[in-house]
Amino acid sequence: MTSLDQAADISDLRRLARKRLPRFLFDFIDGGAGAEVTLRANEGDFGAWGLAPRVGVDVAERHTRTDIVGYDSALPLMLAPTGLAGLFRPGGEGAAARAARDAGIPFCLSTNSVASIEELATQAPGGDRWFQYYFLKDEGLTDRMLERAREHGYRVLCLTLDLPVQGRRHRDVRNGFTVPPRLTPQTVLDAALHPAWSLGYLRHGVSFGNFETAQMGGGISTITQHIAALCDSGADWDTVRHVMAKWDGPVVVKGVLHPDDARRAVDLGAATVIVSNHGGRQLDAVPSAVAALPAVAKAVAGRAQVLLDGGVRRGSDIVVARALGADACMIGRPFLWGLAAAGEAGVTRAIEMLAGELDTALALLGRPDVGEIDAEAVFRR
Amino acid sequence: MTSLDQAADISDLRRLARKRLPRFLFDFIDGGAGAEVTLRANEGDFGAWGLAPRVGVDVAERHTRTDIVGYDSALPLMLAPTGLAGLFRPGGEGAAARAARDAGIPFCLSTNSVASIEELATQAPGGDRWFQYYFLKDEGLTDRMLERAREHGYRVLCLTLDLPVQGRRHRDVRNGFTVPPRLTPQTVLDAALHPAWSLGYLRHGVSFGNFETAQMGGGISTITQHIAALCDSGADWDTVRHVMAKWDGPVVVKGVLHPDDARRAVDLGAATVIVSNHGGRQLDAVPSAVAALPAVAKAVAGRAQVLLDGGVRRGSDIVVARALGADACMIGRPFLWGLAAAGEAGVTRAIEMLAGELDTALALLGRPDVGEIDAEAVFRR
Amino acid sequence: MTSLDQAADISDLRRLARKRLPRFLFDFIDGGAGAEVTLRANEGDFGAWGLAPRVGVDVAERHTRTDIVGYDSALPLMLAPTGLAGLFRPGGEGAAARAARDAGIPFCLSTNSVASIEELATQAPGGDRWFQYYFLKDEGLTDRMLERAREHGYRVLCLTLDLPVQGRRHRDVRNGFTVPPRLTPQTVLDAALHPAWSLGYLRHGVSFGNFETAQMGGGISTITQHIAALCDSGADWDTVRHVMAKWDGPVVVKGVLHPDDARRAVDLGAATVIVSNHGGRQLDAVPSAVAALPAVAKAVAGRAQVLLDGGVRRGSDIVVARALGADACMIGRPFLWGLAAAGEAGVTRAIEMLAGELDTALALLGRPDVGEIDAEAVFRR
Amino acid sequence: MTSLDQAADISDLRRLARKRLPRFLFDFIDGGAGAEVTLRANEGDFGAWGLAPRVGVDVAERHTRTDIVGYDSALPLMLAPTGLAGLFRPGGEGAAARAARDAGIPFCLSTNSVASIEELATQAPGGDRWFQYYFLKDEGLTDRMLERAREHGYRVLCLTLDLPVQGRRHRDVRNGFTVPPRLTPQTVLDAALHPAWSLGYLRHGVSFGNFETAQMGGGISTITQHIAALCDSGADWDTVRHVMAKWDGPVVVKGVLHPDDARRAVDLGAATVIVSNHGGRQLDAVPSAVAALPAVAKAVAGRAQVLLDGGVRRGSDIVVARALGADACMIGRPFLWGLAAAGEAGVTRAIEMLAGELDTALALLGRPDVGEIDAEAVFRR
Ligand SMILES: Cc1cc2nc3c(=O)[nH]c(=O)nc-3n(C[C@H](O)[C@H](O)[C@H](O)COP(=O)(O)O)c2cc1C
Ligand SMILES: Cc1cc2nc3c(=O)[nH]c(=O)nc-3n(C[C@H](O)[C@H](O)[C@H](O)COP(=O)(O)O)c2cc1C
Ligand SMILES: Cc1cc2nc3c(=O)[nH]c(=O)nc-3n(C[C@H](O)[C@H](O)[C@H](O)COP(=O)(O)O)c2cc1C
Ligand SMILES: Cc1cc2nc3c(=O)[nH]c(=O)nc-3n(C[C@H](O)[C@H](O)[C@H](O)COP(=O)(O)O)c2cc1C
Repeated sequence: MTSLDQAADISDLRRLARKRLPRFLFDFIDGGAGAEVTLRANEGDFGAWGLAPRVGVDVAERHTRTDIVGYDSALPLMLAPTGLAGLFRPGGEGAAARAARDAGIPFCLSTNSVASIEELATQAPGGDRWFQYYFLKDEGLTDRMLERAREHGYRVLCLTLDLPVQGRRHRDVRNGFTVPPRLTPQTVLDAALHPAWSLGYLRHGVSFGNFETAQMGGGISTITQHIAALCDSGADWDTVRHVMAKWDGPVVVKGVLHPDDARRAVDLGAATVIVSNHGGRQLDAVPSAVAALPAVAKAVAGRAQVLLDGGVRRGSDIVVARALGADACMIGRPFLWGLAAAGEAGVTRAIEMLAGELDTALALLGRPDVGEIDAEAVFRR
Repeated sequence: MTSLDQAADISDLRRLARKRLPRFLFDFIDGGAGAEVTLRANEGDFGAWGLAPRVGVDVAERHTRTDIVGYDSALPLMLAPTGLAGLFRPGGEGAAARAARDAGIPFCLSTNSVASIEELATQAPGGDRWFQYYFLKDEGLTDRMLERAREHGYRVLCLTLDLPVQGRRHRDVRNGFTVPPRLTPQTVLDAALHPAWSLGYLRHGVSFGNFETAQMGGGISTITQHIAALCDSGADWDTVRHVMAKWDGPVVVKGVLHPDDARRAVDLGAATVIVSNHGGRQLDAVPSAVAALPAVAKAVAGRAQVLLDGGVRRGSDIVVARALGADACMIGRPFLWGLAAAGEAGVTRAIEMLAGELDTALALLGRPDVGEIDAEAVFRR
Repeated sequence: MTSLDQAADISDLRRLARKRLPRFLFDFIDGGAGAEVTLRANEGDFGAWGLAPRVGVDVAERHTRTDIVGYDSALPLMLAPTGLAGLFRPGGEGAAARAARDAGIPFCLSTNSVASIEELATQAPGGDRWFQYYFLKDEGLTDRMLERAREHGYRVLCLTLDLPVQGRRHRDVRNGFTVPPRLTPQTVLDAALHPAWSLGYLRHGVSFGNFETAQMGGGISTITQHIAALCDSGADWDTVRHVMAKWDGPVVVKGVLHPDDARRAVDLGAATVIVSNHGGRQLDAVPSAVAALPAVAKAVAGRAQVLLDGGVRRGSDIVVARALGADACMIGRPFLWGLAAAGEAGVTRAIEMLAGELDTALALLGRPDVGEIDAEAVFRR
Repeated sequence: MTSLDQAADISDLRRLARKRLPRFLFDFIDGGAGAEVTLRANEGDFGAWGLAPRVGVDVAERHTRTDIVGYDSALPLMLAPTGLAGLFRPGGEGAAARAARDAGIPFCLSTNSVASIEELATQAPGGDRWFQYYFLKDEGLTDRMLERAREHGYRVLCLTLDLPVQGRRHRDVRNGFTVPPRLTPQTVLDAALHPAWSLGYLRHGVSFGNFETAQMGGGISTITQHIAALCDSGADWDTVRHVMAKWDGPVVVKGVLHPDDARRAVDLGAATVIVSNHGGRQLDAVPSAVAALPAVAKAVAGRAQVLLDGGVRRGSDIVVARALGADACMIGRPFLWGLAAAGEAGVTRAIEMLAGELDTALALLGRPDVGEIDAEAVFRR
């Protein structure tokens, strides 16, 4: 498998990304916190569930359209907010947002994107656009940021709660990863060995587009320093309520694993709870997203939507998530791998792969409408 | 282990096949859908069962004859329908059918065979011959095909229900596998490295023998395209009833994993239910055949026979299947590996290996008659 | 680890044996039947049990003496009957028997030994000597053999019940193993690469010492052919009773895994039941010895002794076996590896390793007397 | 990862230590008894527990101070007693003790240290200092040793109960490890390949600092011989009581896995029970420390403190231990790896890693005070 043509599934996109990116960047995407137990469990725990197919059903037509926080999405799928996407490809956020838009699914921009709120809106006009917000220490900064998002057509506000401090990602420490990448013999060699990426990078540079250099303290820093400088580890549910009040559209809460926290978020008016452990990047050894899902879905009890992210790599993962109570899934790494491998075409391919696998799964399950997927469609291995 | 002489078990035949076949063909046989979880489970889940031997029993004589859909088979075993067997060896279907006939066990020809219904009947006269049918969009084609099968002495009609659309087999995508094989630098090199296979192929060519080129849209296509063009993804239980009515001999239904589907098939008059997930080639993550067997056998409750295929690699697997309620087993890959490795002699060897292992197992279990195998003969690990 | 001096445990003796023996011989010792599931489980299932140590106990003196079928053995351990030991070292049976005698533990000669009943008695006078018998088709041969054993001081008769036919050992098929080794390019090369073994072999030759060439049909044969020619697959419990009646000393029954068979053996007057699956060499997928032990011990209920063999590799395995109801253990491969590695000194070392490990385990368990080991000493992981 | 700068977690310190130490020394630290099942379980069984995080909590301030046997420790962590630390770095015990002192956590000197009781007190004045005692055969020697410890400011006496005899550490046997290292071609080559260590060693030599050469029988010996010569395998609970009476400060009992032994120790007046299997170095196959902890904590029932050592490698392990009833943890290998890698700075780094990981875990768990960690903070996987 050497080209996008021969890429059969998401793992192939990952392989292509590995070839194109310097190691320290591939690791930044790929890696997780601590011993990466949760990272692996995010993918692996989907394997605890099997599919229960029925035969003798007319499956000539399949249906996958799904409401996501009020948007009629073509798939029960959307792109998760990911920082620094523009570091993997020049214009990365725009490419991803266009691919999502053209596939008819929502896209969420991260606080820590390379493209600013405004740039992204220009790079990818139209589509269903969300903005992900990290609690900032500076209230003025918060207000301006939400204001900018509202003005540029971001419909949904996504509050990420699982990052009061940055997780400990050992690969980044070992690689000496900083933003922008610091020049060391190791990183220079690494970049030299991946010229396709390096040329793009040298032509475009990289920074946290939503912040001014002054706000970031200027210069080179680790992500951990960036977060510690700007983010508010003192934010609590009151802060959540406070920020929610500043936004007049739907607010979703991301990073919930405990049913009581899910209940709390819904009580405060969250339109959706996103079951997520930040892709295994924050606290290692916490439950995988799919393991945490059933109890959260039960706690939410239909009072809000439930999304899930973390480890979704196949169409059947979406089936499992639906069967366990999620309305839809978000993907992080899968689209970043596609992006790193082949830009917008790569993101499109990632979405197509999952859409195609979902379609086949619905046909072979004998449940041609994704809305029919219920607990009977899966079984615990 | 380098020759058929030293081949001790089915895994050795697989190794020999791997040597002789171009990679894209070996993978076509060997591979499964998706992440190949079900493929591995088909084999692996037999390992969940142990054998409970008794000693002090006279086992001088062992008995393995078993009724299979009315045929007095020498073994509780038969060859499963497999498409394109003639691609692995010129005349492959004929070789396999003769080996089955000479071993006194049934053979089932696939809709998608290289040898046509008529050719196979000529290549391998006699023996117990079945025909496997995929639901075709074109009713006229269906009628002609069943007519041809009846005329040429196919006794049993096998309806495969688990292929309304083709499964997603990533190895085939990565290898760019088509029928006939498309010439790419990769496939040409692959073929050049396996001259024994390539010479045979160049001399004989390959096509889907039961279809005319026009019916297939002509030219090179992936199996997925072939299936999508000809097969009816709208077939349901009514279609099953409809086709059953066209056949006056016994009809068996293949591809059942759910007990309710098994009941349904028996209600419609199926002589036999074949517990199968198509060798893990259709929907990944469904239950392994052996895991699905007990509930199906219970649902059928003696109203019809139960066969199983998927992962049968050893004589003891047949013992386990019998103990869990199957009357007999079918094998797919094991005989294809033998065929690819050594033609008819290889198929004969595959059957002999399983027969020999079964014989030894009956002796060492202290249950010399395969008919005596019941739930006591096995235990759950 | 390159010499006996640095060998720390049984696995080191196995490594040394691997170096010294031609591959086909190492595999003959090391291998098992089928996929070697039971072979691995014999060792692995000991790992299902943990040890529960107590502290604050005076363990200055440890005691390991144990009655084995009436013999006051220095250890709860003895050497299992193994065919062809003399093939691994010239005079192998004698070396092993002397090592056992000098360690104060019983030794059991196999029907299929290289040294005959008489030769062994000469090579290793004294000690507690048993004779293992396979049911032979020829009653006259049986009578003579038992007569010879009795005359030469074999105290206990061991009836092996789990070999009505020979198991299917794939390694031996792949290696083309025969007795005496057939000369093929492969075996000759293999032998040439292991000159230490080959010289010994060339000087001494090898045959089944208890049979005359005529009885064996003469010439080269596989073990499977040898067994099929001489052994009686029709032997049943009546045959057991019949042979028992021919022996006036204690008779033990080897190869029992099912509690009902254990009960039957005791009812017929067996002094001891040996829980064994023939070291995983007969029927694959049967329970490991240690997994089968508790139910057998319960069935025997103190009416006879219980021994276990299969997978004993460490002193703690003996503790586990005792805790689960065995009086003592037998070892097969461990002493054969020692023998192949270093002759009598190697067997002595194998015994010493297990004795030393047992001694340390008793001390660190806070149960200095092996007789105190009960179910409390272990726990299920 | 090649330098201390890039070391991200304890496993990196281990890698650095492996590079710097001769193999026989690395193995002496790294290895365990028998098949190292317990060694692996010590680490692995922490993986049986997951963390249950809460969000929406103000975690701007985190608290880790913990009382350890009356000392106000900066962390719920201390350094375990380890023999021969001075062999891995000249002045090793002093370096470790200073690092502990400067981090504000206790340090425990081993009976078998290279630095004597007096030397350590000089090398590392101040800090909370404990002395670990092995039961010696010679009562006079005992009295003098306790006297020396008391005089030099050792506050707590730690009685290690799980070493009546030395465990069987196969790596040491295979490596021919002795104290001082015996000159063999193998050890000389090994040392030559690790010149940094060897130079330090040649300059400083090594011996058991708390014993006079005469007491040890002089010359080169294995640790097993050293222990057998000096230690009293007859010590029992009466001996414990007897030695406790000689010490007027707090006494802690180390090496308890069974709840009844824990109760016994507390009944005798132990201030603390240390759940430990000596880092998997004594009896293999005993429970891991973390597996044994809950039952011990329940048995102690608050009547004394409970510490745990064995397998603590991450901040989250400390969280798990706290949640299961331990007041604090000890680490052995982690600080020895740091010491071998980089002397005092390496020990400091090991402590900082665990402190930092613990801090992040408290933040991301939404439980900023280590005192709030209870059973709700973890879940059984
Ligand atoms: C490189 C990368 C950067 C991320 N940045 C953010 C972020 O800025 N904000 C956020 O809420 N989540 C962020 N995430 C987490 C994702 O939103 C999402 O939870 C996670 O990627 C889902 O797991 P998956 O990668 O297995 O699909 C990031 C994830 C990755 C891989
Ligand atoms: C190369 C190949 C082609 C197959 N073609 C067909 C087919 O045309 N029709 C069908 O009903 N099943 C087909 N099968 C499935 C087999 O009938 C059978 O269910 C499966 O091979 C059993 O699993 P096993 O290969 O592990 O024995 C095919 C299987 C293989 C390996
Ligand atoms: C090379 C070899 C030859 C054997 N030959 C005999 C035999 O002749 N008779 C018999 O009763 N058991 C025989 N056995 C089985 C042993 O008596 C014993 O059951 C087995 O070796 C125990 O398992 P272990 O090897 O794991 O200790 C043989 C085992 C081996 C490894
Ligand atoms: C090299 C080494 C030497 C040790 N020496 C002693 C000792 O002299 N006295 C003692 O009580 N424990 C000793 N221990 C055990 C430690 O106190 C502690 O129980 C163990 O190291 C904890 O496990 P960990 O290494 O996984 O952290 C030693 C451990 C190691 C690794």
